[in-house]
Amino acid sequence: METDINVVIVGSIGLDDIETPFDKKKQLLGGSVSYACAAASFFSQTGMVGIVGDDFPAQYLDLYKNYGINLDGLQQVEGKTFAWSGVYDADMINRETISTDLNVFETFMPELPATYRKAPFLLLGNIAPELQLHVLAESENPEFVIADTMDLWINIARDSLMELIGKIDMLTLNDSEARLLTGKYHLRHCAETILSWGPKYVIIKKGEHGAMLFSENSIFIIPAYPVEAVVDPTGAGDSFAGGLIGHLATLGEVNDENIRAAMLYGSIVASFGVEEFSLDKLTKLDKVTIDGRCQEFKDMLTI
Amino acid sequence: METDINVVIVGSIGLDDIETPFDKKKQLLGGSVSYACAAASFFSQTGMVGIVGDDFPAQYLDLYKNYGINLDGLQQVEGKTFAWSGVYDADMINRETISTDLNVFETFMPELPATYRKAPFLLLGNIAPELQLHVLAESENPEFVIADTMDLWINIARDSLMELIGKIDMLTLNDSEARLLTGKYHLRHCAETILSWGPKYVIIKKGEHGAMLFSENSIFIIPAYPVEAVVDPTGAGDSFAGGLIGHLATLGEVNDENIRAAMLYGSIVASFGVEEFSLDKLTKLDKVTIDGRCQEFKDMLTI
Repeated sequence: METDINVVIVGSIGLDDIETPFDKKKQLLGGSVSYACAAASFFSQTGMVGIVGDDFPAQYLDLYKNYGINLDGLQQVEGKTFAWSGVYDADMINRETISTDLNVFETFMPELPATYRKAPFLLLGNIAPELQLHVLAESENPEFVIADTMDLWINIARDSLMELIGKIDMLTLNDSEARLLTGKYHLRHCAETILSWGPKYVIIKKGEHGAMLFSENSIFIIPAYPVEAVVDPTGAGDSFAGGLIGHLATLGEVNDENIRAAMLYGSIVASFGVEEFSLDKLTKLDKVTIDGRCQEFKDMLTI
Repeated sequence: METDINVVIVGSIGLDDIETPFDKKKQLLGGSVSYACAAASFFSQTGMVGIVGDDFPAQYLDLYKNYGINLDGLQQVEGKTFAWSGVYDADMINRETISTDLNVFETFMPELPATYRKAPFLLLGNIAPELQLHVLAESENPEFVIADTMDLWINIARDSLMELIGKIDMLTLNDSEARLLTGKYHLRHCAETILSWGPKYVIIKKGEHGAMLFSENSIFIIPAYPVEAVVDPTGAGDSFAGGLIGHLATLGEVNDENIRAAMLYGSIVASFGVEEFSLDKLTKLDKVTIDGRCQEFKDMLTI
């Protein structure tokens, strides 16, 4: 018997070349939907919407399958897979993009297969807001919709991004993007402005300093788990969002308390993810190990 | 009847000229012991050890007295009070020191009056480690000793700083200073190194990102309260340390749980402090208002 898909995630799939002060790797599995689906799959039956070229390594498809990710929404077409290369600074926080080759992503039109349309939880990963709107329109009465975005879309596609923001339940973005989007400086003011546009929740991500959840009446602050040695921070925000929605989907009701708990899980999956390149660490994880660090982290946050 | 002094704090007293992107103020009351004693005085009977010149405004002495700070350890001598001027960047986080005039501070030899010697809680604020050692030697069996330090002393007085670190219960310093002191990068490794030198506790301060408490078996992470509008961040670390030791002194036993609670109070006093220049906001505070924000902040941190 097939389990119903309860989380659907759309986003990019890339082959990444990454250089850090300590190492250099080529053709790594990357992209927002790779990280987010892997993270969500620890908790929920997850469906992936994305596109790869005919050069996409079969081993990476196997890796998706090993997570139990449903691939009905994954398109494989002629051409080359989206490719990104970047170099991290000495602090392993800031990075410079060396090259971005859209390749098959340039003409990507995501489509929700029939098996995905009734999924209650939808994560619109960081892609063009027009495509996020398209996926949202194909989804049938989702219970909770999260969208992530980035500075690029704020700069070049603000109108469609604003249309999207009016239709979702939660927006996630990082602190500098929240400032760029709203023209405000203080994060509380940024969040108030975004909430006034429609979403019930806003999460402002602060990288190695954690994240903040804002709703009409409440603020929640979660620091980042203090990882001993960050090897590759790529995809941490995507793992966070994937873990969050995957765990939230198991908690029944969506409310402030459950979102806080889900953010704890998202943070912890992300903390594991940065300990190795690409999805290497996530591949070795299991639910018990995740639960263990969640408990350890809760102890670190208890007053 | 006089109440026994249970918290003694030594540090600098300065007249500050401060420029922010929004305002410019001259001859403000500043210095680590001003902020720390004001913060501690909300909770505990606090004695001040410091020095001022004969130019020190009488109104500032009155302000100390209004807090109920005991001034037996305050020396007033011929000459000019220590003076500092600095300019904050647009982000209100980084600052540039324009001038530092040691003046009467140059020949300062702190002395503990008899009324201070049996005080159980001692905060050795940020001054030369030789002077911190001198004060510590005059103190009679203190129950808990916290020392704060800065990059200057790490660079020019490492030997006496190391001697001091071996004799205290808790060291507080900021993240870049922890790295400079230990030669390690990851804050967990910095803290492990410092703990191996003797202190039972290390607090690494991360400015607007909060602080971390390390002991042999435990880590505690507290973010900063999200202040709506920071007017003047000067002294925030000192208010934090003062609030911490002042509240801790009321909790009976010194243990991990009580230090966590005291850090909450230190954070909240510091969060009020940055909302106006100098000690202006602290002057208007009362215990009920502090308790209220502590509860609000705890709610923001609850998973």
